[in-house]
Amino acid sequence: MTRVLIVGGVAAGMKAAATARRRRPELDILVLQDEPEVSYSACGLPYWLGDPAAIPRDKLIARSVERFRADGIDLRVRHRVDEVNLDARRAHLTALDTGSRSAEPFDLILFATGAQAFMPPITVTTDAPPVLPLRSLHDADRLQPLLSPPGRAVIVGGGYIGLEMAETLRHRGFRVTLVEAMPRLLPAFDPAVAGIVGEHLAKHGVEVVLGASVAQVGKEGVRLSDGIVLPADHVLMAVGVRPRTDLAAAAGVKLGETGAIAVDAAMRTGIAGAYAAGDCAEARHVVSGKPVWYPLGDIANRQGRVAGTNLAGGQARFPGVLGTAIFKVFDLAVARTGLSAEQARRSGFDPVPVHAQMPSRARYMPNSRMLDGWLLVDRRDGRLLGAEAVGPDGVDKYIDIAATAIWAKLTADDLAELDLAYAPPYSPVFAPVQVVGELARKL
Amino acid sequence: MTRVLIVGGVAAGMKAAATARRRRPELDILVLQDEPEVSYSACGLPYWLGDPAAIPRDKLIARSVERFRADGIDLRVRHRVDEVNLDARRAHLTALDTGSRSAEPFDLILFATGAQAFMPPITVTTDAPPVLPLRSLHDADRLQPLLSPPGRAVIVGGGYIGLEMAETLRHRGFRVTLVEAMPRLLPAFDPAVAGIVGEHLAKHGVEVVLGASVAQVGKEGVRLSDGIVLPADHVLMAVGVRPRTDLAAAAGVKLGETGAIAVDAAMRTGIAGAYAAGDCAEARHVVSGKPVWYPLGDIANRQGRVAGTNLAGGQARFPGVLGTAIFKVFDLAVARTGLSAEQARRSGFDPVPVHAQMPSRARYMPNSRMLDGWLLVDRRDGRLLGAEAVGPDGVDKYIDIAATAIWAKLTADDLAELDLAYAPPYSPVFAPVQVVGELARKL
Repeated sequence: MTRVLIVGGVAAGMKAAATARRRRPELDILVLQDEPEVSYSACGLPYWLGDPAAIPRDKLIARSVERFRADGIDLRVRHRVDEVNLDARRAHLTALDTGSRSAEPFDLILFATGAQAFMPPITVTTDAPPVLPLRSLHDADRLQPLLSPPGRAVIVGGGYIGLEMAETLRHRGFRVTLVEAMPRLLPAFDPAVAGIVGEHLAKHGVEVVLGASVAQVGKEGVRLSDGIVLPADHVLMAVGVRPRTDLAAAAGVKLGETGAIAVDAAMRTGIAGAYAAGDCAEARHVVSGKPVWYPLGDIANRQGRVAGTNLAGGQARFPGVLGTAIFKVFDLAVARTGLSAEQARRSGFDPVPVHAQMPSRARYMPNSRMLDGWLLVDRRDGRLLGAEAVGPDGVDKYIDIAATAIWAKLTADDLAELDLAYAPPYSPVFAPVQVVGELARKL
Repeated sequence: MTRVLIVGGVAAGMKAAATARRRRPELDILVLQDEPEVSYSACGLPYWLGDPAAIPRDKLIARSVERFRADGIDLRVRHRVDEVNLDARRAHLTALDTGSRSAEPFDLILFATGAQAFMPPITVTTDAPPVLPLRSLHDADRLQPLLSPPGRAVIVGGGYIGLEMAETLRHRGFRVTLVEAMPRLLPAFDPAVAGIVGEHLAKHGVEVVLGASVAQVGKEGVRLSDGIVLPADHVLMAVGVRPRTDLAAAAGVKLGETGAIAVDAAMRTGIAGAYAAGDCAEARHVVSGKPVWYPLGDIANRQGRVAGTNLAGGQARFPGVLGTAIFKVFDLAVARTGLSAEQARRSGFDPVPVHAQMPSRARYMPNSRMLDGWLLVDRRDGRLLGAEAVGPDGVDKYIDIAATAIWAKLTADDLAELDLAYAPPYSPVFAPVQVVGELARKL
């Protein structure tokens, strides 16, 4: 009987395990997970931290350890894989609660080791306030009791997690300062998006310090390189994440140019029987055809589904990604899909950005709000390359229509003419994404 | 100089006028409109009637008569066109305020005469309560003063307008009974949608009488064919609309099999120089390729844009429609796009419906709601043919993603693999439309 070893039990790992089990009930599936829980929504952690009364912790767990075991999956939590020998098809592991070591044979292996918070090399004195990342449920468990009573928080890093946590901490009553090393917020977005988000943060009482790097965290707080000290009771590190590739790399698995594990569309690593999926793995960009690394929960789930199908003998292919992403910061949704202008130029396109500010619903409806939308089109043939949007309403719909259109290789012409759902409570006569499409087709 | 005559000044007519003016500033454009106002949102009327304090009447008017005139468009309101002679290129008209008749020459003509409420041949006694349609702003103007104080209303017809007005009238404090001649609500939708909407109406205090036709309206109220009498202070006729084609038909323009004016993709009628657009005209269904008639504001605007471009010497083409529609009834959005199962079968497809009930956002987010979604796919190749959805949240996004996918001839496979915007406040990891796509690909 084939034995499948899955290393990692959050999104990709557990999706793969469940998919493989459904497809081949007789498969011997062993999942090793270093954390005590599996299959939780890492993306939901800021919301649990922000309002644990409204969002109980157990709701973040899509499927319990017990339910996976009831499905006949040999799921072992608090087990760390120390080494994988792909020639001998053996994994060496440590039971974290007892310290006992053992080895497990396998026929097929899936690396679903995820990503980890990047902790920059900053001096933290012993009398410093807590300096914590937010990546795992374990991180959130350490953070939750510290959030009451509120105090002064410094968030280092202005990416999605930093911005989401700015809202969470303000909601919990903290004074919040956000420190970003780059000279602007959201470098993957149009500068105007960064400006809108910056103003919104200020309106909600978040102090933003741009172009500042942290020299040290000590008793007095966070000391920046220019000598300024930001008082802090808690420091949240949200500088970014890195793929967890040590185990796979040590086993001889090849990493791609992004630093994550290189995989083909079947989620194979290039070594027979060894697969990778989720935040530790690359994906191919549907528009540019180039390998990219987007550590996002929905991609992890889709890659896990493909890997699980193939581990069970199927022929699934992962068609790639568009780099679609959305996050919420206070009242704003901020989202993008497709290529950025720079990515498009580097991929041989001739990108032109088009922008409009538009109502999200019929202008006279009381729940209509203004949103800003962009499209990036190829000047030569009008092909849609990318889209961005920011606003309090309609942003997710804008981006999802654009993502579907980009996926299908539609042009600005197509977008302007699409037959979308119009009624005053839901959309203007021309949907926002069509208004921008109409501007783009006239280029 | 070319003289363009546009008959009708609501959606298609005014969009055509504005588009032609922008494209060719020297064009001589005459618009004749029988109503006193132009360019108003007929779709917004139920919302103005429901809450005139929140939605002032003037906000329904996208662009005033004065603004069109300032753009150099010769716009005459309260003018009825009695006859068009396409050989002589002359229109005979009556100024409704004075009764004076005149004739106007033209080189090109656009029939944008819209649709009118269908008034079934019912006996209305002289002592009957008011029996009113709701189609035009004029209709709404007659209705608005009657809504205070509230009383008992009977709505005849369970289409979009009847259902929207049920909400409006309940909101204004009326007791509402809705009478539908068919044995079920919403025959264009899956029976389950009709069931969900029916329950929702009951929950909001709307009494629904199905399979009942109206015999007479008299002093005591609405008498049904089976003798039952529904007491009524007001009777709203919402039995449906018919294309206003008399003028065009009398001028020799050909009507299509749907009863509306037959047009090609350039909005030409087949008689040189004569165009038609909007609710009086047909459109081609993008999936079936067949002529259809959907009197909807967004289609009217898009057809008007094409007609206006071509009246000004352009080469625009209207690519067709998907039959996408959405309406709101109390807390529910109800929407559809593409072919119905019956339409699909008649068009040579092998349709299979797939359904799921799903959360609109991450299940643990407090603003997540359950919605019901359907997809119709071709059993042979998985091609997407149609979609329906009903629920309090996420329905418009579901349908717009599906409409974009159907437009682009995507399959259930594509839909399941699309890279859409995921974050807990906006979507589950797999968007609802992808959940149904995943079920459909496994067929």
